[in-house]
Amino acid sequence: MQDHADDFDSTHVTLAHGNGGRFMRELIERVFARHLANPLLDVQADAVPLPAIDGEMVFTTDGFTVQPLEFPGGDIGSLAIHGTVNDLSVAGARPLYLALNAFIEEGLEIAQLERIAASLARAAREAGVQVVAGDTKVVRRGEGGGLYLATTGVGVRARGLRLGMDAIRAGDAVLVSGPIGDHGIAVMFAREQFGLRGDLQSDAASVYPLTSALLDGPGVRFMRDPTRGGLAMIANEICRATGLTVRLREPAIPVRNPVRSVCDMLGYDPMYLACEGRVVAVVDPERVESALAAWRRLPSGRDSVLIGRIEAGKPHVVLETELGGERLIEELEDDPLPRIC
Amino acid sequence: MQDHADDFDSTHVTLAHGNGGRFMRELIERVFARHLANPLLDVQADAVPLPAIDGEMVFTTDGFTVQPLEFPGGDIGSLAIHGTVNDLSVAGARPLYLALNAFIEEGLEIAQLERIAASLARAAREAGVQVVAGDTKVVRRGEGGGLYLATTGVGVRARGLRLGMDAIRAGDAVLVSGPIGDHGIAVMFAREQFGLRGDLQSDAASVYPLTSALLDGPGVRFMRDPTRGGLAMIANEICRATGLTVRLREPAIPVRNPVRSVCDMLGYDPMYLACEGRVVAVVDPERVESALAAWRRLPSGRDSVLIGRIEAGKPHVVLETELGGERLIEELEDDPLPRIC
Repeated sequence: MQDHADDFDSTHVTLAHGNGGRFMRELIERVFARHLANPLLDVQADAVPLPAIDGEMVFTTDGFTVQPLEFPGGDIGSLAIHGTVNDLSVAGARPLYLALNAFIEEGLEIAQLERIAASLARAAREAGVQVVAGDTKVVRRGEGGGLYLATTGVGVRARGLRLGMDAIRAGDAVLVSGPIGDHGIAVMFAREQFGLRGDLQSDAASVYPLTSALLDGPGVRFMRDPTRGGLAMIANEICRATGLTVRLREPAIPVRNPVRSVCDMLGYDPMYLACEGRVVAVVDPERVESALAAWRRLPSGRDSVLIGRIEAGKPHVVLETELGGERLIEELEDDPLPRIC
Repeated sequence: MQDHADDFDSTHVTLAHGNGGRFMRELIERVFARHLANPLLDVQADAVPLPAIDGEMVFTTDGFTVQPLEFPGGDIGSLAIHGTVNDLSVAGARPLYLALNAFIEEGLEIAQLERIAASLARAAREAGVQVVAGDTKVVRRGEGGGLYLATTGVGVRARGLRLGMDAIRAGDAVLVSGPIGDHGIAVMFAREQFGLRGDLQSDAASVYPLTSALLDGPGVRFMRDPTRGGLAMIANEICRATGLTVRLREPAIPVRNPVRSVCDMLGYDPMYLACEGRVVAVVDPERVESALAAWRRLPSGRDSVLIGRIEAGKPHVVLETELGGERLIEELEDDPLPRIC
């Protein structure tokens, strides 16, 4: 066909990188395949074979549109790994294989795309998953927010594992593995200039060490990572699914000082802020101590605590405040911090 | 949190539909879950269990950014099913399960989203696949091209099936299951007004009936669906992978009259146009007749033909023209019709 002035040696992604031809192949080989190289990945194949899975296979998918693409403690690449790894982990599975979709906006700097691909590959290695399939599309300038990613994961879990909101009973305990809201506030800091950036980083990480440590013992009813909508969202979902009350003690909920300061200043409620590396678990009351002990042996679970109980009563979320009052925590309707994942 | 003026009863998607709260849940339940309902889909779960797979599991993913979102013969929803179903099919697999990602631009009409979700669900039913996992993100107005989709598929194929470009030998025959370029031209017609719309429709469809019919017999080396980059792209990939010549006979390659007219008028080459429901197969020369007979028994393979041969020689694609000349078909560099899938 006709000549094209921009080639891969230029510094920014062009529409020609998305057309199925040589430029696309070069972009995929040099940026994605180089960083993600593993024995199963085959950028020539229409579909890759996966090794046989010994256990129950679980499947999940998630999309990522975070702005900015890079923020303290992570970027859209590492987030796309952690998000899907974590959905598999809280379902009680060991994450194994991922597929990756990239929607790249024309004009994205190739150096930035490479940094994100390298970070994504590093996060995958650390989480013990292989990215075995992928696809890239390039969209016109002004039509793609820089970069959107989607990851779809396959994991394996023990057959017969019963884990879910339907296993929750009145009397169960609610645990959280660490401070809430770091991710939400870190992304907001990366967007705006508040002069109080400090050392706050996103908590984005694989929660598989936490979930597998918990599943080494009995009495685990349900686990979830509090992402969009935060702790408030999970607590409301539990109420809706079980018809029970979720009673949380505000003084027990860990919130780092800089997160609390920003919330006080700007009127955010930490209950609604996203985490990307925490686990909320509902466990048998008998299991509380051993569960917290198991979590506290891990660096990511050092600050884990008991934050509340499930009770018979109306299906709502009650927050006991520091001063002995109570307030109801409603489901999120409008988001104070959009595009945090 | 604060009140939100736009609720689900409004006619267009708002950012609040993507924030993890009530509006998002309602959008997912009313638009996606309602149309896609199947026993495995659980919009509450982080990850869904899949039944055990008897055979070799294969895995693939694809992204979709077609403009306009609806075109004669299909839309981005049906295309997102067919694209991934076809990647599994040409790998010799039976498509089983899909995960769906939707990136929705604020302002998209909910009625259009519903039409697309219904079409997607219909295509999935017809192709015999279940959409078992999904995720939705809403991006700001001006940042999402209306709607992007990604689908990731799991399929199963016979253990030990050896299918791939490395199985191709000199002397093998190249078949195509039907006319090329319908999809590319149908999408272009939907974009522009040429006054010659006629009855041309996209060929988008599941190719699983075609691929499984071929695999009922021996001697199948390699199959692929000619999407972005068209027949030229596949032929060039075969050359690159095998070091052999692909010799195609232009008069044998089926191109519908309206496609040929548009190509003549606007200077497009049908060799580079995308199909979304055709198969190119390389087979043992002994298999040609029975393969074409098997295809011609299917409505979608009625116009299947032998279009060329693999030969020892330089790794290039030679097109024998109607007048007895020869021209080399280069790999696509610049795309005459971007955003067709």
